[in-house]
Amino acid sequence: MATRLNDYKNQISKPSYVDSAFDYFRFGDLLSNEDNEFRLKLRAWLEKEIQPTINDYVERAEFPEEYIPKIRETQVFHYLVDEPFGKGKSILTQGVMAAELSRIDAGIGTFAIVQAGLLTATIDQLGNEDQRQKYVPLLRDLKLTGGWGLTESKFGSDATGLQTTVQKTEGGWLLNGDKTWIGNGNRDIMVVWARNVENNKIQGFIVDLKAKGVRSEVLKHKLALRIVQNCQITFTNVFIPEENMLSKATDFQKGTAKILLHSRLMVCWLAAGICLGVYDNVVKYISNRKQFGVPISSFQLQQEKLARIMSNTQAILLISHRISQMYDNKKITLGQVALAKAFATERAREVARLGREMLGGNGIIFDNYVMKAFADIEALYTYEGTYDINQLVGGRELTGVAAFKVPKKNK
Amino acid sequence: MATRLNDYKNQISKPSYVDSAFDYFRFGDLLSNEDNEFRLKLRAWLEKEIQPTINDYVERAEFPEEYIPKIRETQVFHYLVDEPFGKGKSILTQGVMAAELSRIDAGIGTFAIVQAGLLTATIDQLGNEDQRQKYVPLLRDLKLTGGWGLTESKFGSDATGLQTTVQKTEGGWLLNGDKTWIGNGNRDIMVVWARNVENNKIQGFIVDLKAKGVRSEVLKHKLALRIVQNCQITFTNVFIPEENMLSKATDFQKGTAKILLHSRLMVCWLAAGICLGVYDNVVKYISNRKQFGVPISSFQLQQEKLARIMSNTQAILLISHRISQMYDNKKITLGQVALAKAFATERAREVARLGREMLGGNGIIFDNYVMKAFADIEALYTYEGTYDINQLVGGRELTGVAAFKVPKKNK
Amino acid sequence: MATRLNDYKNQISKPSYVDSAFDYFRFGDLLSNEDNEFRLKLRAWLEKEIQPTINDYVERAEFPEEYIPKIRETQVFHYLVDEPFGKGKSILTQGVMAAELSRIDAGIGTFAIVQAGLLTATIDQLGNEDQRQKYVPLLRDLKLTGGWGLTESKFGSDATGLQTTVQKTEGGWLLNGDKTWIGNGNRDIMVVWARNVENNKIQGFIVDLKAKGVRSEVLKHKLALRIVQNCQITFTNVFIPEENMLSKATDFQKGTAKILLHSRLMVCWLAAGICLGVYDNVVKYISNRKQFGVPISSFQLQQEKLARIMSNTQAILLISHRISQMYDNKKITLGQVALAKAFATERAREVARLGREMLGGNGIIFDNYVMKAFADIEALYTYEGTYDINQLVGGRELTGVAAFKVPKKNK
Amino acid sequence: MATRLNDYKNQISKPSYVDSAFDYFRFGDLLSNEDNEFRLKLRAWLEKEIQPTINDYVERAEFPEEYIPKIRETQVFHYLVDEPFGKGKSILTQGVMAAELSRIDAGIGTFAIVQAGLLTATIDQLGNEDQRQKYVPLLRDLKLTGGWGLTESKFGSDATGLQTTVQKTEGGWLLNGDKTWIGNGNRDIMVVWARNVENNKIQGFIVDLKAKGVRSEVLKHKLALRIVQNCQITFTNVFIPEENMLSKATDFQKGTAKILLHSRLMVCWLAAGICLGVYDNVVKYISNRKQFGVPISSFQLQQEKLARIMSNTQAILLISHRISQMYDNKKITLGQVALAKAFATERAREVARLGREMLGGNGIIFDNYVMKAFADIEALYTYEGTYDINQLVGGRELTGVAAFKVPKKNK
Ligand SMILES: Cc1cc2nc3c(=O)[nH]c(=O)nc-3n(C[C@H](O)[C@H](O)[C@H](O)COP(=O)(O)OP(=O)(O)OC[C@H]3O[C@@H](n4cnc5c(N)ncnc54)[C@H](O)[C@@H]3O)c2cc1C
Ligand SMILES: Cc1cc2nc3c(=O)[nH]c(=O)nc-3n(C[C@H](O)[C@H](O)[C@H](O)COP(=O)(O)OP(=O)(O)OC[C@H]3O[C@@H](n4cnc5c(N)ncnc54)[C@H](O)[C@@H]3O)c2cc1C
Ligand SMILES: Cc1cc2nc3c(=O)[nH]c(=O)nc-3n(C[C@H](O)[C@H](O)[C@H](O)COP(=O)(O)OP(=O)(O)OC[C@H]3O[C@@H](n4cnc5c(N)ncnc54)[C@H](O)[C@@H]3O)c2cc1C
Ligand SMILES: Cc1cc2nc3c(=O)[nH]c(=O)nc-3n(C[C@H](O)[C@H](O)[C@H](O)COP(=O)(O)OP(=O)(O)OC[C@H]3O[C@@H](n4cnc5c(N)ncnc54)[C@H](O)[C@@H]3O)c2cc1C
Repeated sequence: MATRLNDYKNQISKPSYVDSAFDYFRFGDLLSNEDNEFRLKLRAWLEKEIQPTINDYVERAEFPEEYIPKIRETQVFHYLVDEPFGKGKSILTQGVMAAELSRIDAGIGTFAIVQAGLLTATIDQLGNEDQRQKYVPLLRDLKLTGGWGLTESKFGSDATGLQTTVQKTEGGWLLNGDKTWIGNGNRDIMVVWARNVENNKIQGFIVDLKAKGVRSEVLKHKLALRIVQNCQITFTNVFIPEENMLSKATDFQKGTAKILLHSRLMVCWLAAGICLGVYDNVVKYISNRKQFGVPISSFQLQQEKLARIMSNTQAILLISHRISQMYDNKKITLGQVALAKAFATERAREVARLGREMLGGNGIIFDNYVMKAFADIEALYTYEGTYDINQLVGGRELTGVAAFKVPKKNK
Repeated sequence: MATRLNDYKNQISKPSYVDSAFDYFRFGDLLSNEDNEFRLKLRAWLEKEIQPTINDYVERAEFPEEYIPKIRETQVFHYLVDEPFGKGKSILTQGVMAAELSRIDAGIGTFAIVQAGLLTATIDQLGNEDQRQKYVPLLRDLKLTGGWGLTESKFGSDATGLQTTVQKTEGGWLLNGDKTWIGNGNRDIMVVWARNVENNKIQGFIVDLKAKGVRSEVLKHKLALRIVQNCQITFTNVFIPEENMLSKATDFQKGTAKILLHSRLMVCWLAAGICLGVYDNVVKYISNRKQFGVPISSFQLQQEKLARIMSNTQAILLISHRISQMYDNKKITLGQVALAKAFATERAREVARLGREMLGGNGIIFDNYVMKAFADIEALYTYEGTYDINQLVGGRELTGVAAFKVPKKNK
Repeated sequence: MATRLNDYKNQISKPSYVDSAFDYFRFGDLLSNEDNEFRLKLRAWLEKEIQPTINDYVERAEFPEEYIPKIRETQVFHYLVDEPFGKGKSILTQGVMAAELSRIDAGIGTFAIVQAGLLTATIDQLGNEDQRQKYVPLLRDLKLTGGWGLTESKFGSDATGLQTTVQKTEGGWLLNGDKTWIGNGNRDIMVVWARNVENNKIQGFIVDLKAKGVRSEVLKHKLALRIVQNCQITFTNVFIPEENMLSKATDFQKGTAKILLHSRLMVCWLAAGICLGVYDNVVKYISNRKQFGVPISSFQLQQEKLARIMSNTQAILLISHRISQMYDNKKITLGQVALAKAFATERAREVARLGREMLGGNGIIFDNYVMKAFADIEALYTYEGTYDINQLVGGRELTGVAAFKVPKKNK
Repeated sequence: MATRLNDYKNQISKPSYVDSAFDYFRFGDLLSNEDNEFRLKLRAWLEKEIQPTINDYVERAEFPEEYIPKIRETQVFHYLVDEPFGKGKSILTQGVMAAELSRIDAGIGTFAIVQAGLLTATIDQLGNEDQRQKYVPLLRDLKLTGGWGLTESKFGSDATGLQTTVQKTEGGWLLNGDKTWIGNGNRDIMVVWARNVENNKIQGFIVDLKAKGVRSEVLKHKLALRIVQNCQITFTNVFIPEENMLSKATDFQKGTAKILLHSRLMVCWLAAGICLGVYDNVVKYISNRKQFGVPISSFQLQQEKLARIMSNTQAILLISHRISQMYDNKKITLGQVALAKAFATERAREVARLGREMLGGNGIIFDNYVMKAFADIEALYTYEGTYDINQLVGGRELTGVAAFKVPKKNK
């Protein structure tokens, strides 16, 4: 019967398989040359410098401090930060680089979007000129690292109900309350979203994590994104100097929601990266592992799964691309991003599941990537709004009706 | 909590829902103005002229002969046929128009791709100049209609094994064997793929369905694409004049496979059309149907499904778009199209299933489109290579190993 | 490698496949001898008398009137009616017989549970002695046939909100309103659930479908259960004689809900029957159909699906069995039955989908059963409470919170 | 609308939810009083003694040595070992106890079935009287612990191809080769399956893990069943005394396959236990966690998932029960057990996934059980034959055709 045509014809031998999901639908053609070049350099660097050592950190659930200076050198964070401070010309550029990080380890990818897509982006987009000049370059260069705090122990999905407060005081504000799940919450600074007791609005502040009254504890016993340090933080009369108030973040809509639009979109790219990691690892493994006298890639059940991994990966890449275009063209709504995020993580979940099972026993050892993907995608599926919440955000836009709340007495 | 932003803001009232899945990710922006204009005219025409009457034909499993002259007038078939005979500048143009047909009825969509995407395209691409001049304009204008025959009663998935033969005779060829499932096989002409007994190659011929020795019978008791007339045809010493041989179709690879690449890609668009039909009908229904005192669009379970329909629809549109670009750029492989076709029909299957159930009892009445979608997608999932076969075609490309065959004695 | 052990050893040849899903986990061992014997006689009869002719009725969406006297003779309805009028010693007996009907055609199965499980059971359980003596034997013998009406055009899932009313008048009641989706609603009599305007309770009545003021119309364009005649019925001042009031059905809980418990359980068995039909037809087809030189049952992708069909079928049988035991022991709750009904129809949906695709093109022709199963299961998934409603009925029991309603203004 | 009936009526308040999935379909009624009593005692003990401390071991991927004497005291291993050495009257008894272990931690459950269901059962069923008397009591009392080795680095799914060899020597045998994935392979003894170089049959031996020539290393970086110590073991001229040969295990069919039948059935019960753990933890969590002012158990999307968890759990329990009955009645085939194992682990996978997501962020912290379930079920899905392999074992029985192998040159 027919063999493949044109393009893949030569590729059949040496290696006898399509080895990179990124290229299959010629995704590189949709990027600028500069982006593509940097991306390929980054990929090579990650495979050489990070891949061989990352998994011991995963085992110990420890953040790989030693990577910080190395990553700084690659300048990948320049590509994750908007111009003029960075080289991130578009969210498409930023997304693609985040995907490459995630392709090696979604924990590294998550570290990056917390640092760049949340913390830096918030200061860059909602801070005044002084704040931008002071912080963005340091953050971009990883000289200063930190987190972004919206979630509280009693307010996760219902973020707009948050209860951490700020109260005006001389020369600044007093912060009281708690935040939880804060990635990088044991580092230098963080953005805190808190309710201004005077006008009841949710505003944003830059908070020094070493300030008096801050207590931060790393959450234990996590089985996803193990290298990411998520913290439970309490604030007791923490003083925030006036200059640390983000003046453009005057309420939830104008502040937090704007950033969520951006960071949720970045999560699509992390999910895409996980899929790339799964495909690229799986196709290699099954082409080399033999059972019953042949490579296991010869079995129908394996091929059907590999095909499903590939087409879902393409779908996620294309949807991330389209939604990024719309973002870059300033034609985007919250619902569109919410649906894309939910779709990307849900499909990536299937991809990870398939990859996991295709490796048999070795599929539960995370050195083979798939088990890490299988666990990590659960975090992506959940953070920046759970799948269900994002579907309801999208659903609200599609139907014109919000469905988050139920009657208090529903009987 | 936040309401939708920017774009959809005004849309919230009147109507209070996003009413067209086609527009949600601004798909129109990816098309030329001309294509978009024609598409919109076509949509309006279909809703007015076809939608109100089609379902009685579906009930009776009868082809709506009365539509032929009307459809001719719309010139939609010009957009389904390549330049210079048609206005189909790219497969993207052709696909989008096919999707609009399918959005109203996938039977009409299927009629169109059999007529244009298979029969006409074969003569146009593989015929000589005389054949093209003689047939293509008539086919484009629906003055001549017909089918395309590869499948035989004993050779479906294993098409390359087909046993219908042609034997050289004076002034032409003698055709013997059978074809089955041939859509439009009770009309004027068809392309027949047959094995040349001399060189064992599979070649293509234009066959007059009224010729002596042709017996055609419509398959009964079909529950999908009921208006499409699929025929079981036997050929007994049917004479084919020499001038009806397609001279460029010298073997399976150069002939049949080339057309399959094209027509499988068109099936992606039909699947996209079904999804558009589902979303557009469902969102309207659930916004108007009330239970428990509210529109059923208020319920979480309904919204989650609607959201899933929407994002899958976008994924199918985007994948069809990308693969069409690659086709139009002549950078395409059989495996890429196979994966796209399998993905599109599988995801559309989920879309149809969700839409079906969202309408409750009324979801099994096909006037509401969803039940028709639910049944029709099964045909798309199966023809032009079943889902499994296409996944294996893709899998072969990804792994370098074909997995269609098993040892004769597998014990 | 190992061949099967013990039991199936001899069965390997002649035929070389396990041909009946019913027997695989020795389900017969869980039934009484009498039930098993009758079941086998019934199966043989159905395969001989009904299977060969039923599908023309399906095509025409026509009820097969000619079967009535034949079915009467088999006495299967004796097994569907409780003792003493029938031989239906337990709901297990009744369920198993209904499954056998459904294994041939779920329309026949549905006709049976409307007639026996709804209409007859209501009069038998909620009628007075006169009503039982008058109606049950006639209904059991199909001398009188009819329907059962709860659903209204504006009240489907929200059945307790129904608006059809009865008002006391001399010698009886006046009935006004409408019912829809009423299976057998074009026959002799029906049970109507209506709101007593005086006390606002929902009560039950036996209504003569030929009475003045009754107008019944068969719903058209249905693609599932095509032989079942579902009617839209309006009642305009229809007089119901006092003796036709069901005196034990004093309100929704004591009346309607009791019957729903029974009939929903019967739907589990119809779903089981559909699965039996799918497996038994599929295994035969794939063992005989050859492609690529071997029976298609040799392919991994086919075997994995067949295995999934089989195990889901066993799960449905076992859950139906357990829930029937609990019912027969009078240890049953609404939530348990709701969950079982939802599970059975949802799993059967997957079974039907798999069976459908395993037959390729022939899988859309309903003579091969699978396409009929694929369409019909949608009706079962929806009637007697949709899947979602039943999950919420179960969910209410599991959580102690009802989740059907939303705030009127949900924003 | 209707509230729940009969049984669960009183339960609505205090606690307001159904708190144990085990009881929902009255599974206890299907067990003997003795078994039930022991089961309940065991459950209470596990919740008190193991649950509070197990998760630190999971974090460190360390076997909880300190539990051994405590577990010994509970005598649960008596219930996991056949009479007369144990009190395990039937596989039903054994299965139910294993499920209770797994409900707290599937690693403990796995330790138990390796020790009892594989190692002890092999010696008990295939050993001679001396071997049974010598080993079974010690194993039952956990005075001796160990593993069972079939898998080799090059032979996983294709176990019958294994290459580890034994060669007769004076007073015993010489063992050479390797085994991998061996649970408890760093303890006292293990059963090794090896090919007798003389007759090419696969035979079983009891091997002392401290013997000369044995090298064992624990596999690192596992993300499922972290407390289980799976070892990679090499054997270099290891001497096995004659008395350690299992004389009834004369070939694969009579030896290994018999044990696999038993142990695969036990895996069904471990999967059931995981589901019990998921439901019981989830229902409690969602009834207490509030968002948007209400317990999250009030939301439709949560209830639908909870309902699905419950019904799948019931299905797994019932299928495990039925297959155990058939085993205990000696009416069982390899295919039946294979299908049951594949079904149970696949459905449990969905259960774990649903439970995982229902807890939001806290669902990735394994103290809440669900994330542990989510990861651990992958191991169950894979060991004792992967899902796919078991589906093909079942498929072979259903179709009469084996589909494991492909032609060497499949092109
Ligand atoms: C790895 C990780 C990293 C994170 N990093 C950060 C961070 O850096 N900064 C930060 O601020 N936050 C962070 N988060 C928090 C994250 O945003 C929240 O976990 C998420 O919003 C969900 O909130 P929750 O965990 O409180 O779940 P809940 O809100 O308690 O939700 C529990 C379940 O209930 C469902 N649910 C809730 N409300 C509804 C409703 N109305 N209708 C239907 N279902 C509902 C949810 O879908 C979910 O299944 C992180 C989380 C994780 C897991
Ligand atoms: C509505 C409709 C319209 C059609 N129109 C046309 C037309 O106009 N012209 C035309 O030529 N044909 C037409 N076809 C035929 C269509 O192309 C075939 O139905 C299709 O190729 C599948 O072949 P089959 O039906 O013979 O299934 P089979 O080949 O018998 O396949 C049956 C099942 O076996 C599976 N299977 C087969 N081989 C393998 C394998 N090696 N490994 C694993 N699984 C395998 C398949 O996936 C399928 O599930 C039409 C079909 C339909 C349903
Ligand atoms: C073939 C067939 C035969 C039938 N036979 C009979 C009969 O003989 N007698 C009879 O009385 N009735 C009969 N019915 C009616 C059947 O019981 C109803 O169709 C069913 O109860 C659903 O009602 P509906 O169709 O009005 O859907 P709707 O109630 O309009 O529901 C539409 C959709 O909204 C969803 N929905 C509704 N409420 C909620 C909620 N609160 N939360 C979340 N989702 C919700 C549903 O799940 C469904 O997806 C029959 C139906 C069919 C299809
Ligand atoms: C936690 C854990 C504990 C274990 N404990 C033990 C133990 O105590 N003792 C012991 O002996 N073993 C043990 N095993 C090994 C286990 O039995 C094997 O992992 C299992 O049999 C699969 O073999 P494999 O890992 O080599 O996968 P492979 O055989 O390499 O399979 C890889 C993939 O290929 C697929 N595949 C293989 N052959 C085919 C085919 N013919 N057709 C289609 N697909 C195919 C598989 O389904 C799988 O997806 C354990 C495994 C795990 C994960």
